[in-house]
Amino acid sequence: MWRFELLAQDGKSRARRGRIQTAHGVVETPVFMPVGTQGTIKSLSPDEVRSLGAQIILGNTYHLSLRPGAERIARLGGLHAFMAWPGPILTDSGGFQVFSLATIRRIDEDGVTFQSHIDGSRHRITPERCMEIQELLGSDIAMCFDECTPYPVTREYARASMERTIRWAQRCRNAWKRRDQALFAIVQGGVFADLRLECAEALKAMDFPGYAVGSLAVGEPKEILLEVLDTVVPELPVDKPRYLMGVGMPEDLIEGVRRGIDMFDCVVPTRNARNGMLFTSWGAVQIKNSRYTDDPRPIEPGCSCYTCRKFSRAYLRHLFMARELLAYRLNSIHNLHYFLRLMEAVREAVEQGRFEAFREDFYRRRREGEPIDD
Amino acid sequence: MWRFELLAQDGKSRARRGRIQTAHGVVETPVFMPVGTQGTIKSLSPDEVRSLGAQIILGNTYHLSLRPGAERIARLGGLHAFMAWPGPILTDSGGFQVFSLATIRRIDEDGVTFQSHIDGSRHRITPERCMEIQELLGSDIAMCFDECTPYPVTREYARASMERTIRWAQRCRNAWKRRDQALFAIVQGGVFADLRLECAEALKAMDFPGYAVGSLAVGEPKEILLEVLDTVVPELPVDKPRYLMGVGMPEDLIEGVRRGIDMFDCVVPTRNARNGMLFTSWGAVQIKNSRYTDDPRPIEPGCSCYTCRKFSRAYLRHLFMARELLAYRLNSIHNLHYFLRLMEAVREAVEQGRFEAFREDFYRRRREGEPIDD
Repeated sequence: MWRFELLAQDGKSRARRGRIQTAHGVVETPVFMPVGTQGTIKSLSPDEVRSLGAQIILGNTYHLSLRPGAERIARLGGLHAFMAWPGPILTDSGGFQVFSLATIRRIDEDGVTFQSHIDGSRHRITPERCMEIQELLGSDIAMCFDECTPYPVTREYARASMERTIRWAQRCRNAWKRRDQALFAIVQGGVFADLRLECAEALKAMDFPGYAVGSLAVGEPKEILLEVLDTVVPELPVDKPRYLMGVGMPEDLIEGVRRGIDMFDCVVPTRNARNGMLFTSWGAVQIKNSRYTDDPRPIEPGCSCYTCRKFSRAYLRHLFMARELLAYRLNSIHNLHYFLRLMEAVREAVEQGRFEAFREDFYRRRREGEPIDD
Repeated sequence: MWRFELLAQDGKSRARRGRIQTAHGVVETPVFMPVGTQGTIKSLSPDEVRSLGAQIILGNTYHLSLRPGAERIARLGGLHAFMAWPGPILTDSGGFQVFSLATIRRIDEDGVTFQSHIDGSRHRITPERCMEIQELLGSDIAMCFDECTPYPVTREYARASMERTIRWAQRCRNAWKRRDQALFAIVQGGVFADLRLECAEALKAMDFPGYAVGSLAVGEPKEILLEVLDTVVPELPVDKPRYLMGVGMPEDLIEGVRRGIDMFDCVVPTRNARNGMLFTSWGAVQIKNSRYTDDPRPIEPGCSCYTCRKFSRAYLRHLFMARELLAYRLNSIHNLHYFLRLMEAVREAVEQGRFEAFREDFYRRRREGEPIDD
């Protein structure tokens, strides 16, 4: 059922074009995965998400296991049926959220004890329980439970954390049962290139169906992320998909693809939409800006999304200022459309061996800014 | 352009079946009009509202004139273009909101001075300005500016207020310019049958395209509403549409139709949806109730709305408890579908002369409660 094919490679960069076959359908890579934290891409119906061109979405193991609960979702037919999303789903391991949202009570070799950010209730997650939860959710791609290395951190801590992540990955691999579910390992090691490499080597030896580069913590400079990718990606198996977790802005996707990444996820398009920040080829539109009060144009002239075909900046600003629910939805439609179209264009450029020219054009449009009307 | 046809009358009640032709299309009556207070039916796209079967929607003159402003909407092509709703629109006069939401500074013969509930800014509305605003919005049906009689109130105040409403209706009629816009008068007089009758007589003499029964204030017993309708409706012209403002619950629509009302509007289906109260033929489902935590059934088995076709009560409860934006939307879809299908069934029953049997069946299903599964 699971299969990854490498279809093309760009001549001048590490960018690559691939195809993943999952139990719930095909995913063309490089791909951006919208985030459906609590069993919904916020404000959008699954049909809308599908028609925007999303191929695969991400569900958050941490959130779903706390509410409504993995056993409950399994009884209700699994996450695909529960949220009426028929396509592929990737679930994260919950590691990142346990370390960023919950109150940690104890980290030991066996696992993590934490308190829920919702009601303070106490929970314990181990690599084995993490696998069990993801099996109950029934995602197409599961992630190994990892300790998300904090930043900044000492080299000693980063090493200990990375080594534990390797041991946990082995335990996840041992506990892995569902053969309709692929299991990805996560390369950790923080900002230390040699630790990342060591981690990649160890995980490669365990032969996982895919490999992720673990999220760098909030506040970490972007140059470090690119350096990590420059170091780690060449060491990952060529014939397995590579996933950069929790990234990012449009330029981060471009730079990730250029360094050989196949998969991305991020809350940026939907969260920023709800904050009134809209993406266009020339940069961001802050819809609450008073310059849009009487602007009859769509967010991005020429954009084919529902929002741009039907509504003016003036209307979208009005909805946003009036805190109307439709604002969050129309903004989310536009932003997701932008991200998904961007990745479609990336795939085409890689296929045609013109990714570097595409990338230059991407930055040129940013520099030139919004085209001036006649 | 404007035309009202009476197509059928029920033999055993005052229920009637009609058709209104407006500049933006046909409306089959009796009709329920979803409320789009600020230029949007909360959480729903105009295409969704259309596909739910809404024929005509209501826009709130008070809200739209304060934000984003009537002149601005006119510059942007009028309310239809602004909110991308191609069908008929009725705008209320703003009277009810001025008296219920704003801080009144002064009521005099000429008009009302009030402070905005949004930013405290001072505004003045007169019958002439009310007409101007509705012309700028470009609605298909405009309402005369009225003083909404408070409750409880002395007979003396109710008389003075009703007489002023008549004088203001005459001024609205004099100021009425757009011939693609119908103008409805509003019968006031509070709970006093003789005052209501006197008002109806005076307004009938002015020959308006349609007549409304002014909303009774919050807190007024329902029996009084029905008595008012029993008194007033028979005195209204047979060949003009009759609109009961701001009403109501499903049973109120049934009772209004029975007493000869053709048009209704209310925030109940959408507001209650956002509060987790879902309408079904056997009564209300409070989706946050823990009995639905593991319930795999749709809100109402057999319901053909998008929400019921795709999602379980367990999922809808999860979304609602997690305060997910999709909850408000899926709940609104179901409730509006319920109201619009109910009115479709009402129209069919009146056409076929079996409205009384339909009404009995409506109450019987309520009494029997939710059908028990095998």
